[in-house]
Amino acid sequence: MGRVLGRSYERENCSAARALEVAGERWSLLIIRDALFRGSTRFSQFERGLRIAPNILTSRLERFVVEGLMVKQPGATGQAEYLLTEKGRDFGPVIMALTEWGDRWDAPAGPPIIFVHATCEGNVVLDAHCDRCDATVDMTEVSVTAGPGSRQDEVSTHSS
Amino acid sequence: MGRVLGRSYERENCSAARALEVAGERWSLLIIRDALFRGSTRFSQFERGLRIAPNILTSRLERFVVEGLMVKQPGATGQAEYLLTEKGRDFGPVIMALTEWGDRWDAPAGPPIIFVHATCEGNVVLDAHCDRCDATVDMTEVSVTAGPGSRQDEVSTHSS
Repeated sequence: MGRVLGRSYERENCSAARALEVAGERWSLLIIRDALFRGSTRFSQFERGLRIAPNILTSRLERFVVEGLMVKQPGATGQAEYLLTEKGRDFGPVIMALTEWGDRWDAPAGPPIIFVHATCEGNVVLDAHCDRCDATVDMTEVSVTAGPGSRQDEVSTHSS
Repeated sequence: MGRVLGRSYERENCSAARALEVAGERWSLLIIRDALFRGSTRFSQFERGLRIAPNILTSRLERFVVEGLMVKQPGATGQAEYLLTEKGRDFGPVIMALTEWGDRWDAPAGPPIIFVHATCEGNVVLDAHCDRCDATVDMTEVSVTAGPGSRQDEVSTHSS
């Protein structure tokens, strides 16, 4: 990444870019979604649930293991199980945010899936929340400032 | 999209996929981020703020206008202004969610940017929130069920 992108990109933009790199592809997000919100763990469950081509599924699961988003382990039935790590589970809000946008702007028949709270069956939605005044925050009230990670050397050592 | 992807994909997965299609690319998200959270409106502001190549910036801005994420209008100084529409502003949570993941898992020097609440200068974070019991919800307490948009015909009429 360092060689093809500009300095400013590397310095202040790597967080979102890195997330896109490891899971910013439609099948990747759907596999993580089914693992996280449907409890899918086995190859056959993902394949059946998503009707995904086996070769694509194989490549995505292998990538997730390499990236540390999943661990692969022998299951009780002898079939391998793919289990999300904390790093993988942390993609939950990304999946919800993308889904909420699509539901609002490109789902004329209504939301294809709904996120449900296990304990009360209410709908789960994302809110932006201020950790100081505790308010729910509209995006028009948010700005960005440089954080500690923006003060890197001019010659970035960040690699992809 | 309909011709290359499977039926299940189209039926239940188009919301997140559609969001990825229109803004799921690193420069696209960064342009929207600077428009939304830094108030950038002019070509030169995006170019300088992101150090993005002019040809890439041009193609992304044109795409946003076509997709209805931005409107282009003459500015007071004669330079064109690109203003986010509501559809474009709605990518705010996507940008925040991606950034939060990257900050947590791939930002050893700390967050490159911080989201700040304009009125109190507190940090703004995303929370998953239940609309029934009002609780802040952990992702492990969330599951997905089919929504109204999942009951489409077998032969999807959804086009990309």
